[in-house]
Amino acid sequence: MIGIAYQGIPGAYSHQAAQLFFSQEKRLDCRGVESFDNVFGSVAKRQTTYGCIPIENSLAGSIISNYHALKDFPGFIVGELYLRITHCLLALPGAKLQNIKTVYSHPQAIAQCKTFLKKNPHINVEATLDTASAARKVKEAHNPTQAAIGSSLAGELYELETIKTALESHEKNYTRFLIIGNKPNETKANKLSLLYSVTHTPGSLWRSLGAGSRHQINLTKIESIPIIGRPGEYYFFVDFETEKTKDAQNALRELRKETLWIKELGWYTKGKTYED
Amino acid sequence: MIGIAYQGIPGAYSHQAAQLFFSQEKRLDCRGVESFDNVFGSVAKRQTTYGCIPIENSLAGSIISNYHALKDFPGFIVGELYLRITHCLLALPGAKLQNIKTVYSHPQAIAQCKTFLKKNPHINVEATLDTASAARKVKEAHNPTQAAIGSSLAGELYELETIKTALESHEKNYTRFLIIGNKPNETKANKLSLLYSVTHTPGSLWRSLGAGSRHQINLTKIESIPIIGRPGEYYFFVDFETEKTKDAQNALRELRKETLWIKELGWYTKGKTYED
Repeated sequence: MIGIAYQGIPGAYSHQAAQLFFSQEKRLDCRGVESFDNVFGSVAKRQTTYGCIPIENSLAGSIISNYHALKDFPGFIVGELYLRITHCLLALPGAKLQNIKTVYSHPQAIAQCKTFLKKNPHINVEATLDTASAARKVKEAHNPTQAAIGSSLAGELYELETIKTALESHEKNYTRFLIIGNKPNETKANKLSLLYSVTHTPGSLWRSLGAGSRHQINLTKIESIPIIGRPGEYYFFVDFETEKTKDAQNALRELRKETLWIKELGWYTKGKTYED
Repeated sequence: MIGIAYQGIPGAYSHQAAQLFFSQEKRLDCRGVESFDNVFGSVAKRQTTYGCIPIENSLAGSIISNYHALKDFPGFIVGELYLRITHCLLALPGAKLQNIKTVYSHPQAIAQCKTFLKKNPHINVEATLDTASAARKVKEAHNPTQAAIGSSLAGELYELETIKTALESHEKNYTRFLIIGNKPNETKANKLSLLYSVTHTPGSLWRSLGAGSRHQINLTKIESIPIIGRPGEYYFFVDFETEKTKDAQNALRELRKETLWIKELGWYTKGKTYED
């Protein structure tokens, strides 16, 4: 049995991501926990082997608190995946769109479905703490004039019908999830994530990235992570696409010299994209 | 009269930011609009002279949709500010913490106040679409067992009392706001923001940043903005701290050569930090 922790209640998009990543596993124990911190804690305390955390969404942006948590996490990134976020309108079986009076969801999901909601002004919108609890609320109320905006998995788990799918205004919205664990998983690794800081002087960030460039290693992402309590100062999160070759390790050694502080977050296999 | 658009209803943190930025102006017309897109639209259509948009928060991360909107916006960044986000517990005058049964707020504000909420398990939490509408809801219900988590400005505007301030678990949480307008404002400019893309080849991003480094220009922030519909591909948003000198303009010319596409978002004065 492989244990994997995610934030939320069953039916959360993180739950869906965890199931997809481990879809080859026959015995999977997905455990919803209260906060992202609890996901990291669950892995660090060996309560679960893995954790699944969202790190960025193409519309909503980065989940900065998870970069901060990676900084202090004693384990590693062992995998990743990209999940297309498809918002479904979920209601009791037999419910009809024209009779829906209230829709529940997280404000971010609501914002992403604004075109649909404008076209249906008869629907009143109410916020919930997350999309899965919106689905649970509709199930519990047992009222066919209520609906939730959430994942197809939430629909299945709470026995709701998908009245309408792909409610989102931008059709191509993806969330990147990282899989974290206590042991590195470097078999077939072709991606490396780092977190580091440099001195506040001209060229320091540039010099740090030069090491990868000199060794022909492709830098695919760089993100400035605001340092808490120091407005305008940042850590840098970077992704390199590279196998763990000698050359890559030399590049990493050169890069280290240009940093004030650095953490190797993990070498892992570049993730698949799931269209749901 | 100077018109400035912000997203939300009166009392939103964006409203507070707009007021602080223009605190020297005697005649200020702050107009709350429905969405961030409407803020950009209001400026582009000359309905207001300026707009005030949040762009990143030290805990919650970047508001990616606003980077995308900057890409298509015909105007410029003309200023910025950093605002410390201080969450207040707002209730009817005379209400007491021990009697509060329900607190309303945006899920993000609720998450940022989790330590306070854990210490007060007698309080039931309900989500709203934003913090200012939580305050308005408490005002309208006129029920002393209800409270909202929101800005001090929301408290003032809805005539609520701040029962407790600084509810947030991390005490130092700042949001960076950008002020946008139709005309550049380069007087005393010492900061430049750019948005660009590079080829997907080793070293291309690094070479683009080299121009700044060669001219001793400090790169203070770089952010990968996921390109919608192309998971794993990014635009880059960068901030340079530099006056608009000949040297800086030469650096910009060299940088341009390394990009596939580039947009100069604006030269403006580095922003102040407001502790509320």
